[in-house]
Amino acid sequence: MPIGTEIERKFVLGELPQALAFARRTAILQGYLALDGDTEVRVRRTPAAAKLTIKHGGGEVRVEEEIALGTRQADALWELTEGRRLQKTRRTMRVDGLEVSVDQYFGELDGLIVAEVEFDDEQAARSFMPPAWFGREVTGQAAYANRTLSVHGLPQEGRAG
Amino acid sequence: MPIGTEIERKFVLGELPQALAFARRTAILQGYLALDGDTEVRVRRTPAAAKLTIKHGGGEVRVEEEIALGTRQADALWELTEGRRLQKTRRTMRVDGLEVSVDQYFGELDGLIVAEVEFDDEQAARSFMPPAWFGREVTGQAAYANRTLSVHGLPQEGRAG
Repeated sequence: MPIGTEIERKFVLGELPQALAFARRTAILQGYLALDGDTEVRVRRTPAAAKLTIKHGGGEVRVEEEIALGTRQADALWELTEGRRLQKTRRTMRVDGLEVSVDQYFGELDGLIVAEVEFDDEQAARSFMPPAWFGREVTGQAAYANRTLSVHGLPQEGRAG
Repeated sequence: MPIGTEIERKFVLGELPQALAFARRTAILQGYLALDGDTEVRVRRTPAAAKLTIKHGGGEVRVEEEIALGTRQADALWELTEGRRLQKTRRTMRVDGLEVSVDQYFGELDGLIVAEVEFDDEQAARSFMPPAWFGREVTGQAAYANRTLSVHGLPQEGRAG
């Protein structure tokens, strides 16, 4: 499915919101097969399924395509992502009628909690007022892109400010 | 399907062999989505089908995985290959009981004709005696890898020797 123009805002939370403590969560393993300029090719595995995603951002062409992978194929491709993997659990909640994904990272990124909100258009994105517990906004910061996190780990506070 | 260890030898032909003049041919459009070290992600389109291929060579891990693409998805991904495409027709023939693919290139690579022979093992690859019309061997030459051809075009004779 093409996601067309994806408009989202991203925030670093100080802690997991109480409201989500017992929410359903999905374990996600994500690894990057190829990073080439504005194009990334990644494998994402959840207990339910494995997918290959090709994302291209920046410039006029924005593309996001997902392809289902069989288990054997997912295993073979996962091998190629070594050194560029991350592990997180995702919970979702609604804030102001919008779906918010809250990702809690593990492993080398332990302690990082990120909330992402997707919007239908730029107007909606601009007018969104994040609640105080959303913490610091990192929308568009390359250091907090998953591909960067998977390779370089947690941003240093100095760099992230 | 995993191809495991792919052992092949590659030759640049002076011209298309007479025997193939009327052979069945398949038009192939090939474009590279992502080139990242030893990993390449490409789209290959023929009149019959479109496929995404992830290839990883070099080092201990060799992987080649193919995934079928629907037309809409193939179109969307093809957009991302601009500047890294090539166009060829493939014909196959048998030489000494081995299947040989003869690729005739068009567009910017017009005039290039390459024969590829795949072998079951290294022993078979070493003992193969190419017929005289196979021309110059370019096995392992990066300049003749499809990914290089798609980006840099025809190798200059001086460089290719």
